[in-house]
Amino acid sequence: MKFHPVSILAVGSLAFDSIETPSGKVEDVLGGSVNYFSIAASFYAPVKIVGVVGEDFPRTHLNWLSKRQIDVSGVNILKGKTFHWVGTYDHNMNEAKTLSTFLNVFEHFDPVLKAEHQESPYLFLGNIDPVLQQRVLDQVRAPKLIACDTMNFWITGKPEELRKTLTRIDILSINEGEAYLLSGERNLLQAALAIRQMGPSVLIIKRGEYGAALFTPQGVFLAPAFPVAEVVDPTGAGDSFAGALLGFLAEAGADREMAKHHPAQWDQLLRRAVLAGCVMASFTVEDFSLNRLMLLDKTHLIERQHALMKMLLV
Amino acid sequence: MKFHPVSILAVGSLAFDSIETPSGKVEDVLGGSVNYFSIAASFYAPVKIVGVVGEDFPRTHLNWLSKRQIDVSGVNILKGKTFHWVGTYDHNMNEAKTLSTFLNVFEHFDPVLKAEHQESPYLFLGNIDPVLQQRVLDQVRAPKLIACDTMNFWITGKPEELRKTLTRIDILSINEGEAYLLSGERNLLQAALAIRQMGPSVLIIKRGEYGAALFTPQGVFLAPAFPVAEVVDPTGAGDSFAGALLGFLAEAGADREMAKHHPAQWDQLLRRAVLAGCVMASFTVEDFSLNRLMLLDKTHLIERQHALMKMLLV
Repeated sequence: MKFHPVSILAVGSLAFDSIETPSGKVEDVLGGSVNYFSIAASFYAPVKIVGVVGEDFPRTHLNWLSKRQIDVSGVNILKGKTFHWVGTYDHNMNEAKTLSTFLNVFEHFDPVLKAEHQESPYLFLGNIDPVLQQRVLDQVRAPKLIACDTMNFWITGKPEELRKTLTRIDILSINEGEAYLLSGERNLLQAALAIRQMGPSVLIIKRGEYGAALFTPQGVFLAPAFPVAEVVDPTGAGDSFAGALLGFLAEAGADREMAKHHPAQWDQLLRRAVLAGCVMASFTVEDFSLNRLMLLDKTHLIERQHALMKMLLV
Repeated sequence: MKFHPVSILAVGSLAFDSIETPSGKVEDVLGGSVNYFSIAASFYAPVKIVGVVGEDFPRTHLNWLSKRQIDVSGVNILKGKTFHWVGTYDHNMNEAKTLSTFLNVFEHFDPVLKAEHQESPYLFLGNIDPVLQQRVLDQVRAPKLIACDTMNFWITGKPEELRKTLTRIDILSINEGEAYLLSGERNLLQAALAIRQMGPSVLIIKRGEYGAALFTPQGVFLAPAFPVAEVVDPTGAGDSFAGALLGFLAEAGADREMAKHHPAQWDQLLRRAVLAGCVMASFTVEDFSLNRLMLLDKTHLIERQHALMKMLLV
């Protein structure tokens, strides 16, 4: 795959998930943050992924990814087993309960970027150790826009390192509960204020079935989730949200320069990118694993984005 | 007060509340559904209230209400004490926990409408026994638009009577948890479908700090809550939401005839009315009791409605 001016480098996990929700139960299905992210982003822009899998990870899936403008040459295949997450959701689908985590080969994940990957203009730091997130940041040469995700585990486990990461990124996308944990606040506005002071100019607080709140220097945008008839499995909703978001921005060529020189345009693109994220997440949750995403085409996305925009029209 | 073509008749409780929230604690403050409703609605249209209070209820407050196009001649003052609710909220401000309820004179509430009140074109049935709601419906002669609220207590306690009420109203406004309880569903769309089949053409599902979802024959509108810097006390948010909603519709002359003959206009007015409700509720929660509402002027409402509309602009 050739160098592309709007390509996205995404670093994170590839995994097997075993999940139980009120809608059913699946064992050892495909998952992982960079898996969800890259498929979602690839509807908008070329993606290069960096991750690690064990020998048990299906080559057929890597082949499937590489057929749709996703460069998998940064995926290391190591001796041993792939990262395995076991989780469950009760009727409150907004929060997963982790039953067990088998890091396996992911324990030794050390993202070393190929020369070509170091030139990527767009960067997504999936939910991994903030030390590794910084190691990736040290290797990219001139990123135009950096988005990042994190989770409770790192907020409480490596707060100092996470703070360092936050000073180096443009967009942070986290859950509402994580935003309260990170900020020490219990109020949306106060949490957003505190977190944006930690570094990220743009903050997106994901609110599960209630949508997402976007905070930019220009103001606040409150995006509703697209209501689906059945939430089968919320796993990957946040990562596919981030994929569509950054993909949308990359496709539009939106970056830090635009933020500086054309703030109104930047703000408007961010709003639409957040809606694209909500739409993508709404498809993700309609089935287990990547099942729904792998059957999507762009027409579905566009139709649903129009439908969602009608739901916030006054 | 003379007959007015867009006046609203509101039936419900006037109360003393004792409330504890993470922001503080108040004892024996003014409350009750029709109190919150009428103040909110009176920013838009004249209101006549029907209720009952004990001898301990301050005449000064009734006088204050009557100074702002609220007709309190339908409030009966009975021997005994006013209805008293004692409740608490934890950090999840979306749900109240009732500690005790002293019905007092409210136990003998039997809404008998004065001849003048029977002519009211707009009607709000506050959260009271559905048997009483029907007794009110039996007395109004030619209502143009009827909105109704209810709660868990009646959904589980008088389901048959509530179903009868629902067949006779135009707009139902309830909480998300109540919508799931009433419908037996666990999904927003499915709950809305089931409830609208019970009678109300228009359904509003209130989602606390996440806003409100409006379901009409024309589609879905997802309104965000206006984010405030501190939620002091959520009591009355739902009733003041309903007050602004119905007040807004009454002011615009929107009714069942408009719904039938100008569905697009009706749908658009409903969307704006829901936003007016969200705005009013956001003021209500900024202080205990009616404190914030009693200091409001219409400029505040208009400014915040504009601010909220900017937060859903794409």
